[in-house]
Amino acid sequence: MFKDAIIEEINSVVNHSRQAFQQYKKYSFKQRADLMRAIANELELCGDDLIKIAMQETNLPEARLRGERARTIFQLISYADACEKGDWLDIRIDTAIADKNPPKPDIRKTSVPLGPVVVFGSSNFPFAYSTAGGDTACALAAGCSVIIKAHPAHAQTSEMVANAIHTAIEKCKMPEHIFSHVHGASFEVGKALVTHQYIKAVGFTGSFIGGKQLFDWANQRKEPISVFAEMGSVNPVFLLNEKLNQSANDIAKQYAASITLGVGQFCTNPGLIIGIKSDALNTFIHSLSDEIKKIAPAKMLHSGIANAFYQKRANALQQSNVAVVAESETNADENSGLPTIATVDAKTFINNPLLHQEVFGPYSLLIQCTDINEMLLVANHLEGQLTSTVMATENEFKENIELIDTIKNLCGRFILNGVPTGVEVCRSMMHGGPFPATTDARFTAVGADGIKRFARPIAYQNWNNEFLPDELKNENPLNIWRMINNEWTKNPV
Amino acid sequence: MFKDAIIEEINSVVNHSRQAFQQYKKYSFKQRADLMRAIANELELCGDDLIKIAMQETNLPEARLRGERARTIFQLISYADACEKGDWLDIRIDTAIADKNPPKPDIRKTSVPLGPVVVFGSSNFPFAYSTAGGDTACALAAGCSVIIKAHPAHAQTSEMVANAIHTAIEKCKMPEHIFSHVHGASFEVGKALVTHQYIKAVGFTGSFIGGKQLFDWANQRKEPISVFAEMGSVNPVFLLNEKLNQSANDIAKQYAASITLGVGQFCTNPGLIIGIKSDALNTFIHSLSDEIKKIAPAKMLHSGIANAFYQKRANALQQSNVAVVAESETNADENSGLPTIATVDAKTFINNPLLHQEVFGPYSLLIQCTDINEMLLVANHLEGQLTSTVMATENEFKENIELIDTIKNLCGRFILNGVPTGVEVCRSMMHGGPFPATTDARFTAVGADGIKRFARPIAYQNWNNEFLPDELKNENPLNIWRMINNEWTKNPV
Repeated sequence: MFKDAIIEEINSVVNHSRQAFQQYKKYSFKQRADLMRAIANELELCGDDLIKIAMQETNLPEARLRGERARTIFQLISYADACEKGDWLDIRIDTAIADKNPPKPDIRKTSVPLGPVVVFGSSNFPFAYSTAGGDTACALAAGCSVIIKAHPAHAQTSEMVANAIHTAIEKCKMPEHIFSHVHGASFEVGKALVTHQYIKAVGFTGSFIGGKQLFDWANQRKEPISVFAEMGSVNPVFLLNEKLNQSANDIAKQYAASITLGVGQFCTNPGLIIGIKSDALNTFIHSLSDEIKKIAPAKMLHSGIANAFYQKRANALQQSNVAVVAESETNADENSGLPTIATVDAKTFINNPLLHQEVFGPYSLLIQCTDINEMLLVANHLEGQLTSTVMATENEFKENIELIDTIKNLCGRFILNGVPTGVEVCRSMMHGGPFPATTDARFTAVGADGIKRFARPIAYQNWNNEFLPDELKNENPLNIWRMINNEWTKNPV
Repeated sequence: MFKDAIIEEINSVVNHSRQAFQQYKKYSFKQRADLMRAIANELELCGDDLIKIAMQETNLPEARLRGERARTIFQLISYADACEKGDWLDIRIDTAIADKNPPKPDIRKTSVPLGPVVVFGSSNFPFAYSTAGGDTACALAAGCSVIIKAHPAHAQTSEMVANAIHTAIEKCKMPEHIFSHVHGASFEVGKALVTHQYIKAVGFTGSFIGGKQLFDWANQRKEPISVFAEMGSVNPVFLLNEKLNQSANDIAKQYAASITLGVGQFCTNPGLIIGIKSDALNTFIHSLSDEIKKIAPAKMLHSGIANAFYQKRANALQQSNVAVVAESETNADENSGLPTIATVDAKTFINNPLLHQEVFGPYSLLIQCTDINEMLLVANHLEGQLTSTVMATENEFKENIELIDTIKNLCGRFILNGVPTGVEVCRSMMHGGPFPATTDARFTAVGADGIKRFARPIAYQNWNNEFLPDELKNENPLNIWRMINNEWTKNPV
């Protein structure tokens, strides 16, 4: 429906984006925040039309899409508030000490935006991690201009959101090209954007292969740039026996729902469950199977995602010692994902890297260990993850310190007695984890701390108060928290 | 004198370092801080012997080395204080909201150490950026084990400092292998360390070629890791005419001293001076020449550095339109660096990339522009820098907003009416800048914020208070600043 951008168009878009950045970075935090709130408002004003188009393009149900739009609006508004509050600037002020030898100058540190940022829309979050999603909101808050590479699977939704953003920009009388929208199904479009000398950072949510490719291109540039790619994760869940003894059925219900939530199309989907062979585990398996059998298959995002699901599922199931434990008892229509639980012994799992890979969809692999030592061995053989989860009693927690510590070191978010699906938008959120979960485990993709991805620190030495940016001025006109001579305060210097 | 480590030794060192890391990361912040203070104490106890050995190996004068040791001790102690104060953890706590739909869980974010870190000692700071230098101090504060690749030019100094560290570790009853010392003059030693799967981050201070090579190796790993390489910088200084009119002679004296400080062997050495052709600039040139002629050459760090200085200096001087303005009138002995000022017109500079490269030593290139627009053009053609400096009156500052903004965007530290040499150790310091000055402009190599380089955030969701790390517990037992529900406080939850 939409043609891929050609190189000349991409060059023109990037040049305009760079010019607009030069203007946009001078706007105050309040003006940036007002723009973000205006975008939120325009998304609301898109009304039912936007939901309908997104339903057609993504197969996602209406309630989910309405919820996701509300989340996207909340993100824009909460990051706008954070942008104004200025905590993301990490202000440090050290005042001069004239009688030190040599004299200590006045130094004040704040953050400045990196430059034009390319954001690749994700397939599984047509609103919250696409055109006006978390990466765009963070980049705009930081003072960067944004170029969106629309996800081809929901290009029309993306176009409509882009129009809403452009309307907001116009209403705020901001430079038109601080936001640009590029279509492209081919990898050439992505490559041309990421390797363009004026692009200074990249946000991406999607597959490992896609994210790693962008990372490599970015690092091979004459001037390497940061890529914040959120890629695959199997989000391991460790079930300890005393906990299972207490509530195997409840946990099974909780996990059947989590595994199949949104047809399993969440980056925090629990794709690995690790238990210890026992009566309690058998009860859990039995109960989980009963639940899974009852859950009807539902349409996946698009045929490409569905095909990949069935191919990866088939690859996993045909590995030796892998067996299906339960499948939905309802037949799957075309492009629907069949809820599936498979199982394998720990030794096979450890020795077969293919089984460590994500099967994106309503699928989970249950690893059966002979004892707690083998469970530790599994933990020691896992790759970096967005999340890891422990289901344990207080007693089990105290008795398995090394296991808990090992599980902790796998992930960016560490859950006790819960499910990994459901990612709160708040300051404490860490959505990012050691490679290969993301390409930069030091930054979060969810929550206002994500703004920091698109800024870098700069120190002003020996500047007159009137020439400093507002956030560094003596009188603290923005009324933000600042670390002055090693103490946090809102007081003036 | 010291043999290069062989692969088997390196594997053994890394394995031990990893085991020690598993222990070390469990120590409290206070215990880590006490270790760092003990190392500072041992450095002091090395007394004159250490200074003598360093003098022999580096040709640096006694006063400088005593000062550098004091700085190194100050770094260890101030980062130890910061480690205990916990600001580097960037704590965020959001408490649960049970009646939200869906319920919002309790989430608390802190930071955890990355793992074993390799630090490459620098040649120009045998104490402050070598064995017990800033990178080592930051990594130990973060909870990482450290492997030092000793700089071959001061291997004996490095060995003595390493012994001091080992004594401190022993006195603190810490695991022996949290610190390891490896010799190696060949690139194979560095490559084996950086590409070892158990190494999780790299600190480096040195040449662009060396740093970029480490960066590439690290990114080509199966699991890419962070490299914090502080590489070359020419630290441009922009002289505006009104300011020169007021004080050309004073500025010339200030800069003659800065250019030749430590025989020009500082990463913040002002290697480029950009002025506008005028009587004021002529006065400055005349005065700077007079000063430079009077400054005697001094021994450089070692013959390799001296040879590189003369080769790069000769390469620069033989470019067309480059002329020598002034040299020291004293002949240079073997391995001594001859203070030199060269000049070139702006057009030639813009079109000749070789002239943009650092000549490490007492050398500065003065670029003469026809007007302020050409000065802006030069600024627009410069690469990323550690620092940039503007010498201007208030009036000139107000009239040249675009020029000032362009100069700002080049660098990590932005100086008004001062010199770039002299890097304060404090929280507000930003020692790092856009590529190619460093490989990661989001982090500083000087000041306690440098601890953040060796840690990553992790969020605890739904944890019992007693199982949380101390810094996240309700009662705030460490009495540190935490952002609770979006507000900074030291109060308990």
